[in-house]
Amino acid sequence: MGRAMTEPKPKVVHYMKIDGKPAGEDAPGTTIRWIIDEENDGAPNCVMRVIEVEPGGHTPDHTHQFEHENFVIEGRGRVLIGDNWSDLGPGDVVFVPAGIRHSYANAGELPFKFLCTIPSSRLMPKA
Amino acid sequence: MGRAMTEPKPKVVHYMKIDGKPAGEDAPGTTIRWIIDEENDGAPNCVMRVIEVEPGGHTPDHTHQFEHENFVIEGRGRVLIGDNWSDLGPGDVVFVPAGIRHSYANAGELPFKFLCTIPSSRLMPKA
Repeated sequence: MGRAMTEPKPKVVHYMKIDGKPAGEDAPGTTIRWIIDEENDGAPNCVMRVIEVEPGGHTPDHTHQFEHENFVIEGRGRVLIGDNWSDLGPGDVVFVPAGIRHSYANAGELPFKFLCTIPSSRLMPKA
Repeated sequence: MGRAMTEPKPKVVHYMKIDGKPAGEDAPGTTIRWIIDEENDGAPNCVMRVIEVEPGGHTPDHTHQFEHENFVIEGRGRVLIGDNWSDLGPGDVVFVPAGIRHSYANAGELPFKFLCTIPSSRLMPKA
């Protein structure tokens, strides 16, 4: 993935102080905050993001060879795993193993926010 | 660590439906919920726990050779990293690199709850 490894250093910060970046054209209304990352924090194994989906927005319906570990922070949403949709609200936990189709959508009228942890680049499957 | 590797399987569950276990005698008033684990879920890289500290409780002041990645869910607390204490509330993010002294304490009158992600056993440093 080509990211330089940074020496790990401690951090305490509110997630809203970290800028969100648009998640891409295939994720309308969706931003990602990289709250514990490799480049700035030197996270060696797990990378933590906050994903925010606006009302009407969703993430791509796709599949990849690494897992997602999610915790819903606020709002109402839905997750597709394989062929099954599940409703989500604050405190819900989602585990999407590698190789399984998935998509997240806002199902309410307020922002839908959830944590999404993925492996660091050194642990990503090589293409 | 001797844990059997389970085939990863999808999960959607509210974290409160997962039983909390006492965190040990050196963590008074503290329970741990293993919300995405190796034994039941087959998490390959990152293991996710919810740590709940009652008022007056705290986790041990200790050091180990793996990192913590935290997100505060609710309540008021404090974290010691090295020699510095920081106040914590909902939405705060904490990264404690491997090898740095740390402790978490409740600083309020309600339960203090935070996510704590650690590497899976296969990624843990060997003694």
